[in-house]
Amino acid sequence: MGKNGKKCCSLQGAQQAILTKIQKLPAEIVLLKEAQQRIVFKDVVAVAPQPSFDESTRDGYVVALHLGFDEKTNRFEIVDEIPAGKPYLKTLASGTACKIMTGGCVPKGGARVVPYENCVERNGEVIVPENLLQSTETFIRKVGSGIAQGEWLVSAEVLIQAGHLALLSSCGMHSVAVTTRPLVGYVCTGSELTAEPEELGGGRKFSSNSFLLEGLLSSVGACPLNFGIMEDSQQELLNLFSKVSIDGLDVMITTGGMGPGKYDLVERAFVEAGGKVIFNAIAMRPGKSILFGILGHTLFFGLPGPPNAVRTLLNVLVGPALLAMQGVRGALPKKVQAHLQHQVKIKRNDVLRLKDGVLTIEEGRCFVRFAGRLEVGNCFILLSSGQAHYCEGELVEVYLTVDLSARL
Amino acid sequence: MGKNGKKCCSLQGAQQAILTKIQKLPAEIVLLKEAQQRIVFKDVVAVAPQPSFDESTRDGYVVALHLGFDEKTNRFEIVDEIPAGKPYLKTLASGTACKIMTGGCVPKGGARVVPYENCVERNGEVIVPENLLQSTETFIRKVGSGIAQGEWLVSAEVLIQAGHLALLSSCGMHSVAVTTRPLVGYVCTGSELTAEPEELGGGRKFSSNSFLLEGLLSSVGACPLNFGIMEDSQQELLNLFSKVSIDGLDVMITTGGMGPGKYDLVERAFVEAGGKVIFNAIAMRPGKSILFGILGHTLFFGLPGPPNAVRTLLNVLVGPALLAMQGVRGALPKKVQAHLQHQVKIKRNDVLRLKDGVLTIEEGRCFVRFAGRLEVGNCFILLSSGQAHYCEGELVEVYLTVDLSARL
Repeated sequence: MGKNGKKCCSLQGAQQAILTKIQKLPAEIVLLKEAQQRIVFKDVVAVAPQPSFDESTRDGYVVALHLGFDEKTNRFEIVDEIPAGKPYLKTLASGTACKIMTGGCVPKGGARVVPYENCVERNGEVIVPENLLQSTETFIRKVGSGIAQGEWLVSAEVLIQAGHLALLSSCGMHSVAVTTRPLVGYVCTGSELTAEPEELGGGRKFSSNSFLLEGLLSSVGACPLNFGIMEDSQQELLNLFSKVSIDGLDVMITTGGMGPGKYDLVERAFVEAGGKVIFNAIAMRPGKSILFGILGHTLFFGLPGPPNAVRTLLNVLVGPALLAMQGVRGALPKKVQAHLQHQVKIKRNDVLRLKDGVLTIEEGRCFVRFAGRLEVGNCFILLSSGQAHYCEGELVEVYLTVDLSARL
Repeated sequence: MGKNGKKCCSLQGAQQAILTKIQKLPAEIVLLKEAQQRIVFKDVVAVAPQPSFDESTRDGYVVALHLGFDEKTNRFEIVDEIPAGKPYLKTLASGTACKIMTGGCVPKGGARVVPYENCVERNGEVIVPENLLQSTETFIRKVGSGIAQGEWLVSAEVLIQAGHLALLSSCGMHSVAVTTRPLVGYVCTGSELTAEPEELGGGRKFSSNSFLLEGLLSSVGACPLNFGIMEDSQQELLNLFSKVSIDGLDVMITTGGMGPGKYDLVERAFVEAGGKVIFNAIAMRPGKSILFGILGHTLFFGLPGPPNAVRTLLNVLVGPALLAMQGVRGALPKKVQAHLQHQVKIKRNDVLRLKDGVLTIEEGRCFVRFAGRLEVGNCFILLSSGQAHYCEGELVEVYLTVDLSARL
């Protein structure tokens, strides 16, 4: 406990403190077509082999070789036609052939498929060049040759992308167990805020944080639930916090009401509602003023008001917490190193600073620069406390934004 | 025109041929909360300055300095209270002060805000330490000091992320002009395909390509329209293609029916429906068999059947085309260089090969390796025709997947 009743953490300490409070959410079964961007709940194995039958890879003739050699070794009597999409249960007798389509079921006895364009069909027989009967390419994909039944397909904790859906469906799956999406309520506090364009002017402004929250929460797989805008009123906050557990939220987020002089507003209402404070400050800029605690079964994040701080904290603390709830492996933001494209001088270097940055790749090297004033970056550059100067070209640590880090 | 009536392109030639046929779609106005992942139609400038009024950055007292110096220079009569969110039209007289909240409107005459915690209030007066009256920090954000009215905010052709929404809303915008989403119809051909789990087995299999298409089309901002699964029937294809223009699709995609022996199925139906072939082969593996053409006002992509080829072509050709239709700057997949983590030997190096790869960043350097057999990569490694061997550590060119390249 520091001065002013502050429980202050390092960023790393805060990340760890949050992770220890997180329990993985339960599973739900969803159709594959609704599973994109969801998190796999447990390892998935193939319920069926792929292909699930011996499959022709060409339009042509499937042949059953002659027993022994004679002058007709390369001629086969055409006895049937096998369309794709139909089972074929008969056995192909030696010396006979069937027409077959790409994707068609190779019958028992069928040794190889010979593509149409390499054969001559005449008088109910197909004539195959002898050398093709020796070829190592049979134009048959054997059952399970792509993926064996029971083979491991996708690990638990993976973010499902289109490629995974194709893989799962190719093994006969039409649904998958994913982790439930965390239900996240949020409210933006500030008597000056409005959501109505006609109320703008006269001291009112839009709550830009609600757009940040809505967008970033969705991008990490959470279900955002907007409780709207609230005046700076301890009683209203208390009313809201008191029903958080009732509403069954996994996470509750507030923005604003955390600056000096206002601080007690959120914290007092939170504590009065029965909340337990885990920490209420981080040695970091922006984002110094943040409250993390627990209210019933609900994790609580009290974020400061400035959008820059909100965006940073959503990326390095809240977003990772929501990914961890869904069981994502390595939920913490991905830390990489990149070369600074310009020198950096820091005046206030008493605590860790996170600067909005733009990461690029050039000739196999990774570079980073400060984002422009109105530019939206793709990473956060970590500038350590105590270091006042960084040279151009120096390697610095960089957190990727949550949406990027999920893929790289 | 090559042998077998093939109009064959290089990958680069194909990309250029497609881009020359693309016209940017028109604009539509959407609410900010629906604008995430959409493309800005034209440059956006601030309709209001930010902040839109002189704003206090602290809870405290806004003071109007005394005229001249006297013994009461640091005492101010408290005449009113200014809550946040209310206009304040009166002028503050010299030597007086108002209580003010963070975000409150600084009145005319107000020279600076002094935070509560630095003042003493007594007998209707606030007493301010003299040194604070000299400080360069006024705790007032002047109107337009963040963003000036008319200042450029976001360029046309930018992919809108949560940070942009916050920026636009902070300047008083509640909607934005974005490019219309391309309407993309797709159909997976193949008599062996089914969408119904109960039909599996007996020579039938799921159409994994429909999952690839649905997922990847959505991730580049298109509206996918699933025409379902179709038998290998020229008449059915012809019926479908004939109504493409009627349906007002921007793009039509087929998968399957492009292999040797089957090829004419899609192309003949396409041509019979009045389609014009631009090219029907690319010197590349996978993805060699692809038809690109125009049918009325609809761009047409005939993709091959194997999912690996479909995924590659969606990333390097179709996805970029859809981004270009929405006006994205640099719609072609982002090409970067990375160091190979293992040596590579290529047997069939007669044409360009694209291999599914995994890109990582380590100590400021970019590395890439082949994706595992069932792993979904985040890039495609370009292996040139004619080069049979690559050393470990060698720099190779890499296309980022469309979803990654939109951000890096």
